[in-house]
Amino acid sequence: MVKIGVVGGTGYTGVELLRLLVSHERVEIVAMTSRAESGRRVDELFPNLRGHCDLAFTEPDVGELAACDVVFFATPHNVAMNLVPELLAAGTRVIDLSADYRLRDAALWSRWYGEPHASPECLAEAVYGLPEVNRAAIAGARLVACPGCYPTSVQLGLIPLLARQLVDPGHLIASAASGVSGAGRQAKIDNLLSEVSDSFKAYGVAGHRHLPEIEQGLADVAGQAVSVTFVPHLLPMIRGIHATLFARLLAEPGDLQALYESWYADEPFVDVLPAGVFPQTRTVRGANRCQIAVTVPQDRDTVVVMSTIDNLVKGASGQAVQNMNIMLDLPETMGLQQVGLLP
Amino acid sequence: MVKIGVVGGTGYTGVELLRLLVSHERVEIVAMTSRAESGRRVDELFPNLRGHCDLAFTEPDVGELAACDVVFFATPHNVAMNLVPELLAAGTRVIDLSADYRLRDAALWSRWYGEPHASPECLAEAVYGLPEVNRAAIAGARLVACPGCYPTSVQLGLIPLLARQLVDPGHLIASAASGVSGAGRQAKIDNLLSEVSDSFKAYGVAGHRHLPEIEQGLADVAGQAVSVTFVPHLLPMIRGIHATLFARLLAEPGDLQALYESWYADEPFVDVLPAGVFPQTRTVRGANRCQIAVTVPQDRDTVVVMSTIDNLVKGASGQAVQNMNIMLDLPETMGLQQVGLLP
Amino acid sequence: MVKIGVVGGTGYTGVELLRLLVSHERVEIVAMTSRAESGRRVDELFPNLRGHCDLAFTEPDVGELAACDVVFFATPHNVAMNLVPELLAAGTRVIDLSADYRLRDAALWSRWYGEPHASPECLAEAVYGLPEVNRAAIAGARLVACPGCYPTSVQLGLIPLLARQLVDPGHLIASAASGVSGAGRQAKIDNLLSEVSDSFKAYGVAGHRHLPEIEQGLADVAGQAVSVTFVPHLLPMIRGIHATLFARLLAEPGDLQALYESWYADEPFVDVLPAGVFPQTRTVRGANRCQIAVTVPQDRDTVVVMSTIDNLVKGASGQAVQNMNIMLDLPETMGLQQVGLLP
Amino acid sequence: MVKIGVVGGTGYTGVELLRLLVSHERVEIVAMTSRAESGRRVDELFPNLRGHCDLAFTEPDVGELAACDVVFFATPHNVAMNLVPELLAAGTRVIDLSADYRLRDAALWSRWYGEPHASPECLAEAVYGLPEVNRAAIAGARLVACPGCYPTSVQLGLIPLLARQLVDPGHLIASAASGVSGAGRQAKIDNLLSEVSDSFKAYGVAGHRHLPEIEQGLADVAGQAVSVTFVPHLLPMIRGIHATLFARLLAEPGDLQALYESWYADEPFVDVLPAGVFPQTRTVRGANRCQIAVTVPQDRDTVVVMSTIDNLVKGASGQAVQNMNIMLDLPETMGLQQVGLLP
Repeated sequence: MVKIGVVGGTGYTGVELLRLLVSHERVEIVAMTSRAESGRRVDELFPNLRGHCDLAFTEPDVGELAACDVVFFATPHNVAMNLVPELLAAGTRVIDLSADYRLRDAALWSRWYGEPHASPECLAEAVYGLPEVNRAAIAGARLVACPGCYPTSVQLGLIPLLARQLVDPGHLIASAASGVSGAGRQAKIDNLLSEVSDSFKAYGVAGHRHLPEIEQGLADVAGQAVSVTFVPHLLPMIRGIHATLFARLLAEPGDLQALYESWYADEPFVDVLPAGVFPQTRTVRGANRCQIAVTVPQDRDTVVVMSTIDNLVKGASGQAVQNMNIMLDLPETMGLQQVGLLP
Repeated sequence: MVKIGVVGGTGYTGVELLRLLVSHERVEIVAMTSRAESGRRVDELFPNLRGHCDLAFTEPDVGELAACDVVFFATPHNVAMNLVPELLAAGTRVIDLSADYRLRDAALWSRWYGEPHASPECLAEAVYGLPEVNRAAIAGARLVACPGCYPTSVQLGLIPLLARQLVDPGHLIASAASGVSGAGRQAKIDNLLSEVSDSFKAYGVAGHRHLPEIEQGLADVAGQAVSVTFVPHLLPMIRGIHATLFARLLAEPGDLQALYESWYADEPFVDVLPAGVFPQTRTVRGANRCQIAVTVPQDRDTVVVMSTIDNLVKGASGQAVQNMNIMLDLPETMGLQQVGLLP
Repeated sequence: MVKIGVVGGTGYTGVELLRLLVSHERVEIVAMTSRAESGRRVDELFPNLRGHCDLAFTEPDVGELAACDVVFFATPHNVAMNLVPELLAAGTRVIDLSADYRLRDAALWSRWYGEPHASPECLAEAVYGLPEVNRAAIAGARLVACPGCYPTSVQLGLIPLLARQLVDPGHLIASAASGVSGAGRQAKIDNLLSEVSDSFKAYGVAGHRHLPEIEQGLADVAGQAVSVTFVPHLLPMIRGIHATLFARLLAEPGDLQALYESWYADEPFVDVLPAGVFPQTRTVRGANRCQIAVTVPQDRDTVVVMSTIDNLVKGASGQAVQNMNIMLDLPETMGLQQVGLLP
Repeated sequence: MVKIGVVGGTGYTGVELLRLLVSHERVEIVAMTSRAESGRRVDELFPNLRGHCDLAFTEPDVGELAACDVVFFATPHNVAMNLVPELLAAGTRVIDLSADYRLRDAALWSRWYGEPHASPECLAEAVYGLPEVNRAAIAGARLVACPGCYPTSVQLGLIPLLARQLVDPGHLIASAASGVSGAGRQAKIDNLLSEVSDSFKAYGVAGHRHLPEIEQGLADVAGQAVSVTFVPHLLPMIRGIHATLFARLLAEPGDLQALYESWYADEPFVDVLPAGVFPQTRTVRGANRCQIAVTVPQDRDTVVVMSTIDNLVKGASGQAVQNMNIMLDLPETMGLQQVGLLP
């Protein structure tokens, strides 16, 4: 069994990672750290895990983590980048769910996160963990930076259009909406049920930290700079991201439905819906899956793509496990075949 | 007291109209019709009205309605257009909350609604009931067509930009989201709580009936044809519309915040939020109010406007009462000063 | 105009009190205090109040408050009891929405709240502000203790049965459920949307602080000690309390429907529903109203009463305004005629 | 592989059964019938099943069903009872999720369901499929009647108390609440999101069809007649049942926590929570599990039990698969180890 450590397992990506890993037939969680909850049983905090997980949280200890084969960071940014160099040096492979290694440019990272990067020397080595783009590199990586939730849905939705140079890369629009679990398990008035239930709003309009990540990834695919107007919104529900993407066609695009279907034909976790069917977040709830639809309303010159994921699965912990499978040369779908919970 | 008739009061715009009218000091509801619920007390169907409304539903009867000063149609489309000519002939003024008289072009109407218009001769007379645009015409109108919910939020959000020729009118984007009450009070599996709660999806992407209405209204303001890519979405909640609007700036726009504030300075029901504050649907819940924010993310060339209303109030019944006040030369805000219900 | 001060207006009962008071024709809010938000405009925190309230929060100042005719405390417990003696001495009347003066017995209060009572000398003077029981005393009171939300719904539901000695007072059962707004506007993980949405649970089963208040009030009505098994639950929604009450009949009760209807016939804010109709929290949302149904399932010997309120209105701020109207000899319904917001 | 047929797979228990069966390693679904959706792919109706299920709905055909080893009925009542005799005669085993065979007494069934029973001769043979009570009989059964959702949660909660004669069996109280999925996937105004979201109500108070089932099951355990006052409520959410159970203690009960823990110690799907921890529906969401807590508030003479399940899993389809495993002599937990989806 592959020995797994999880740093920061008290948040929503942490408990979701546990949900997936405790059912994975080839791994064993040996360390589960949390400074705040050290000593407490994991299933006391998350009673859905009773009977599935006997661990207690421990203080983070680099020695203990370095004894693992793979360590996941399910932490806020600014934790992984302080510990990763030591773990890599010890031969432990790292899958970081936080933002620390998503941007290749340390200066850009600092501008958006408001502090210097603690281990810029690792940025060149870090592989951006979007398997649909970087599968080969992930396989050999020591350090994988899992994409953010919005960037996963936005990139998977726009990649075929940009790779084929079909749309204006300078005026892309991403109007996306996320369930509140994306905001994490932190005591903030803004995320109380009484504040965000039964309501809808945009936020981070001036500039959300996922913007440079989206633009970096799409520029790679487009082979040129891209500009995205990215407006995230908060949905009155727990899980799910829906990205509605708009792009100006540069020419008659041909059969976009066929393009999308063939582009993702071999991807186990990207599901292009039949023409005329639009995705709903509920059909991917709990599943490691991105469902996509593409259409050109009124046959005008603007293409609309809709892309949905469960932000905690394909947008975080499921994608992390997918990366782990690739890194360990296991079947990519192992432990990730859950059917979405509908209704 | 002004005598009021309401046709089709069993839907959500109907009960909302009653909520507003029973507190209005200058009107008296004398007829409340419903073929399906004839004979049943209104407050039996809607127990929130107990103690506020003693009426029972009656069979629709043109004679009885013609005895009213003002008749509201809170019906699906294809009802008002069959009765309005007779009511107008009888001297009764009509406020139609349905779609029957929103489009000036009968052929366009037929294309979107799939049937001939029953009273095309009234289309020229009908005034589009968006007071912020047509106040003077509404005052003298015999027939007012209340705007749709999406068109209200989208038009109020884009009008200053188009009137001032600041943006490309050929590539406007409206990504809007509505609570489920917009779908009406009809027995459909698609609108069950188990189907639409805890989920989010786009719908009507190929072409929603509010599209031609939006384009007609914006073209009037722009003084030229406009093209809108309009994608509505369904929110897992009851009330509220949030429109996120994107437009390409044609030139350096100057101070957009100041433009919006001055444009709507005298409007009692349009509230431009301070710079940096974005609207939430919850702050207009139950109120006849549109809250708007405008910003240019990252100082690029795309302007983003956010516009929120309660779809049942400023998007339907509140706006209908606002129109009534204007038609009757009453203070425009009479009976419409409710504070939004927060939280 | 009556001069009003509000202490602690940053919580949900505070904003609800403002929603009601800004529309009240006979009062003027002159002071709105909050230590944390001092200097900030009220409508910046609560944008639903834009255009309705020009006040800014100020530091609590006893002198300023003492200049008011009536001061409301919309604070957590342990605030009012420190300031009330001084205000009373200055001739200001006080309506306390917190728990500080609800229990007559200071020792009992201390046992449940875990600290000594700061002004036990005021307890004898404080009038329990349930108008349906204490109207006359409220009219002359200097200090009114508004009932808790659960106690309001539970007492109004059980009073006729106990007053008529129809049920066993020693084995009453109250299974009640509240929206999350009852937990207040405080940064707690437990009340995040991601924690309490899409779920239901009991809490405070071992002993909730509303239990002694319920038993005190019901004992007064019953003329003997009562014992209530009280289990509150948390609903995945914002507003509303539904109490389901069970009591063992001591004898053939006669026509309970008639009893309830006659008992509350003159009460403006208690609405006994017709036989066979059961209350829903949504029909009292935003309204100062308690809707009640009574039935004996299967004609056995257990009576079931269902009682619903909006916890922020009849369960808190609406009832506070009702008390104020009584104290000021205004019509009891002034400013409280809002129709519930349905749907 | 065991050949499985499912009758009526278009409802919520149907899609949930598919979610579980497509991951079950020992069965193969060979027939999926629906009169209304015949010819349509299953994953078109339920896109969460894309990639997991290639079947299309077919017209119900007894011959085709009789070729299966096991047939599930995920239908409303009054379907199974017409087809089961023929299937049993053909040697096919039947697991009925509907109410047709839950009551042993045909006259009682007729009284509650308002029509004669179509195959009363099968009632004696039908085994009530609550494994925690009837495991041995289920193993040998040809016809298993799966318990209703409420009866599962209520019985599992009360069984230890009644079996040990600790409480008054004549005055049991069950105040239970269910998500809306329990009402099925049918076009009814009453279950629209706009009707039941953001609200809470009791229903079926005069007499719910699960009442005789609950009393039959509890009487078996108690060895005497029992009387339950059962009040179901509707929660504004999709999945989950929470039963709050009240019983009068007949004597000092001893250590109830220990009783419950030992009673269910060997049950794989009943989880007695630690003392002081109360269940939430979210911790069993998507899982075949009943979580239970027991307590005596204020050390008085009324015991309170809280019992939660996912109504579609342990309350329906999961329990059906559990029964199937027992009937087929497979490990009882096969295909049922899903971790609850939290948050």
